[in-house]
Amino acid sequence: MRLYNNQDSGNCWKVRQLLALLGIEYERVELDVIDRSNRKDVLGGKNPALRVPTLELDNGEYLAESNAILWYLGDGTEYVPTDPLERARALQWMFFEQYEVEPNIAVARFWIAILGERDKHAAELEGKWRGGKRALDAIEGHLADRDWLVGDAFSIADISVYGYTHVAEEAGFDLEPYPAVRAWIERVAARPGYVPMEA
Amino acid sequence: MRLYNNQDSGNCWKVRQLLALLGIEYERVELDVIDRSNRKDVLGGKNPALRVPTLELDNGEYLAESNAILWYLGDGTEYVPTDPLERARALQWMFFEQYEVEPNIAVARFWIAILGERDKHAAELEGKWRGGKRALDAIEGHLADRDWLVGDAFSIADISVYGYTHVAEEAGFDLEPYPAVRAWIERVAARPGYVPMEA
Repeated sequence: MRLYNNQDSGNCWKVRQLLALLGIEYERVELDVIDRSNRKDVLGGKNPALRVPTLELDNGEYLAESNAILWYLGDGTEYVPTDPLERARALQWMFFEQYEVEPNIAVARFWIAILGERDKHAAELEGKWRGGKRALDAIEGHLADRDWLVGDAFSIADISVYGYTHVAEEAGFDLEPYPAVRAWIERVAARPGYVPMEA
Repeated sequence: MRLYNNQDSGNCWKVRQLLALLGIEYERVELDVIDRSNRKDVLGGKNPALRVPTLELDNGEYLAESNAILWYLGDGTEYVPTDPLERARALQWMFFEQYEVEPNIAVARFWIAILGERDKHAAELEGKWRGGKRALDAIEGHLADRDWLVGDAFSIADISVYGYTHVAEEAGFDLEPYPAVRAWIERVAARPGYVPMEA
């Protein structure tokens, strides 16, 4: 397999983490997230959204959207639940991630930590922090009496939500008011086979 | 089943359309999308994001996120593919929908058609139109030589993407430059069992 990747992207981290847990060998093609001028050349015909991650399968087919890739690689393994309602709840958390977590935390992190433009985006950051806090509140409430997001096992839902939640401080968020989120972040990072963002 | 619904919401339409196709009887609980002050009372403990649609199942369990609900209701029926790669591609389009279509087209439509505040949001609308056009370009390119988004059958991916794409003109978009999108919108609306937004 070949992963069109960016090393700083939490969306790409999700896929790298699951590929590592499943022991799947793959090649990386690194794409720039600041200079996107080659996106059409590299990803045209592979991913309508021209974004990373995009995965090239062994049969030459392509698959895009980090959470769809997690589902494809994970289904049938211990990382995707078998019960129909738990499967749907794993999807529920992954759609929540793409709608509430990523657009707030990932975008704020991109402006602050990747572009170094905190001052330039000061006004928009207020909205991102508000939205991100709402997302963190929802995760905190859910994890208050649970170890993992779905059922009682670590799953692709945890991989998905962890992707940007664990780097929320790089996006200007304070995780101090979120003890259940912090404990869950430590649980994920303590798992055998965990790979850090930079690996 | 009981659907926490808003009649003007494209996200809720998706669920109503699939419930109708499957012949599932359900009760509607209508929630306001402007005055959200009762959200915690009505949806607290049911949906961490406090949004519609939220579905109460016959066994008293709750499920949230429109696309996760489509998967739960549709899996095992003709509306969800059986091939693993096609299943993942249905998810790919649904994640694309929640990341690229909904935040641009649905939000612009909310400001213009629901709140009637086009002038108030004039500056932000520019960004929504740009993002929405990028999403429409991606859909147009994909549908140029296809009848349906995934494989050669109508699926939950079409239901999902149709939800807000077919009301894009209410959001200030001109669909004239998108003939493949317009033809696909007509194909969806011509299907037996189609329910319009207002039904």
